[in-house]
Parts: sequence; C-alpha cells; structure tokens
Amino acid sequence: MQSAVETIHPTLRRDCKIIGRFALCHLLLMNDAQYPWFILVPDRPDISELHHLTEADQRQLLHESSLLARILEIRFHADKINIAALGNVVPQLHVHHVARYRNDPAWPGPVWGALPAEPYSESALAEVMKKLKASLPGDFQYCWT
Amino acid sequence: MQSAVETIHPTLRRDCKIIGRFALCHLLLMNDAQYPWFILVPDRPDISELHHLTEADQRQLLHESSLLARILEIRFHADKINIAALGNVVPQLHVHHVARYRNDPAWPGPVWGALPAEPYSESALAEVMKKLKASLPGDFQYCWT
Repeated sequence: MQSAVETIHPTLRRDCKIIGRFALCHLLLMNDAQYPWFILVPDRPDISELHHLTEADQRQLLHESSLLARILEIRFHADKINIAALGNVVPQLHVHHVARYRNDPAWPGPVWGALPAEPYSESALAEVMKKLKASLPGDFQYCWT
Repeated sequence: MQSAVETIHPTLRRDCKIIGRFALCHLLLMNDAQYPWFILVPDRPDISELHHLTEADQRQLLHESSLLARILEIRFHADKINIAALGNVVPQLHVHHVARYRNDPAWPGPVWGALPAEPYSESALAEVMKKLKASLPGDFQYCWT
C-alpha cells in the first residue's frame, strides 16, 4: 500500500509533521510544542464531512481515533482529550486529537486560534516520537522517524 | 424508557434547551441563535472521554451523530459542520454539532468562547423546532416541543 502523502492538503503538510499512517488515516503531529496535538487525515481527499464517509470508513476512523486517544491518555497523561472535526479553513476532512492539561497555556479554552504555534525542538520531537513508537501498533506505517 | 434529564450536567441544562433523546443520547440545542448549535449527550453520565464508551455505544453515538449532521446539512443548509468533544469545562461527555456558515459571526474561527450567546426569540426557536420535527426519526423521544 502506497502512503499517499501528496493527497494531504498543503496547509496540513506545512503546519504538521507526517508521522505515518494507519489503515485509513495518516497520522500528523501539529508542529506546536505547547500541546501534544495530533491529526488523523482519512485518505479520502475529496471528503469534507464525517458523515460522508462510508459506514465502514467511519468505523475504521473510530477505531484509529480510540487507539490514538488511549495513547494520549496513557503515554501523554492528558487531563482531557479534545477531539474535533472542524474544517472551516482546510476543507479536507481531518480530525484533531489534542492532549490537554490543566496548566497548558490555552486551558480551558480551545486550542484553535488561541496562541501562535511554538515549533518543536529536535529533542522535544524525539521525545514525542519515542512515546509514539512505544505505543503505535506493529502494522503502523511510518513515513518519518 | 425514562428520559433521565436529571443526569445531564447542570451547566448544559442551564445553557441549552433539551429537545429529547435518541436511543443513546439526549439532544440539546444551545440557546444561542447565532448558529444552529446542537449537543449530543450520551446517557452515560460518569464517562468523560469518547474512547471510554463501549464499542456498541461508540457505534450508536456515530449513528446518532451522522443522523444529526445530515439534518444540519440538508435542513439547516450548513456550509460546514463542526463536530467536537472538548469537555474542558463540563466533564460529562458531550459532542457539539454546529452548523457553520461563511457569513456567521465567528467564521472561520471556532464558536467556543468566541462571542456571548444570543438567546433565541420564541419565533426563531419555533422555526428550529419545525425543521427538527420534519427531520428527526419517528422513534425520537421529545422532552420539549
């Protein structure tokens, strides 16, 4: 299976690191070290709404979303997980998964539009990747390590 | 089946009209006439994260969410639908479904914390209810009409 990175919207590619993909979705990391902020992008580039996915794709997205949420809970020790499909700016369907902490700089507000992004340092990025590699399933296809 | 309205978090009951319930979720309307803003509240009051629901409940929530999203698309003519489970302020799991328009007052930003709510007039509320009644399935249990 080819990892069709080029189907990901250019704005997402600009703002994020592409980690790899599950069966349905690419997994992206927003390049903002203020919160562990991941995005699932179903490899269905012409779809903009969750309910336009087939039922099988919806179930698969739910599965990948739950898997990611468990990682945010267990490895990233989130106080709360924010999950959202917005798409007002980038129309391609993508689902935010943000680990939130009571002491993060936007708490308790939403992260979108709250603060300018603070790009990761190499060491902070390596730390995130280490946690992911200890948690992602064996069949996850890495694009970038 | 009793409609256990009292299990809904007091903040949600204060800010919203309780329309009724599907098999799993209560359907609430945020009392803010700036956008058609609905909230699904699974009748599982001790749960705060989507992935803590059983798989069967997750699938049912997905079904009710898709049904609601179709109503926002077809009856409310949304340009974009924003779906989000945040819960930083109200811990009880609840899923926002907001019909967004390119000319709404918060576009393209998120609605949370954007603007003070503008309560519905009686006639605007009646208009929303008319659209819902024309769209909700026959087994939807109304709490309020």
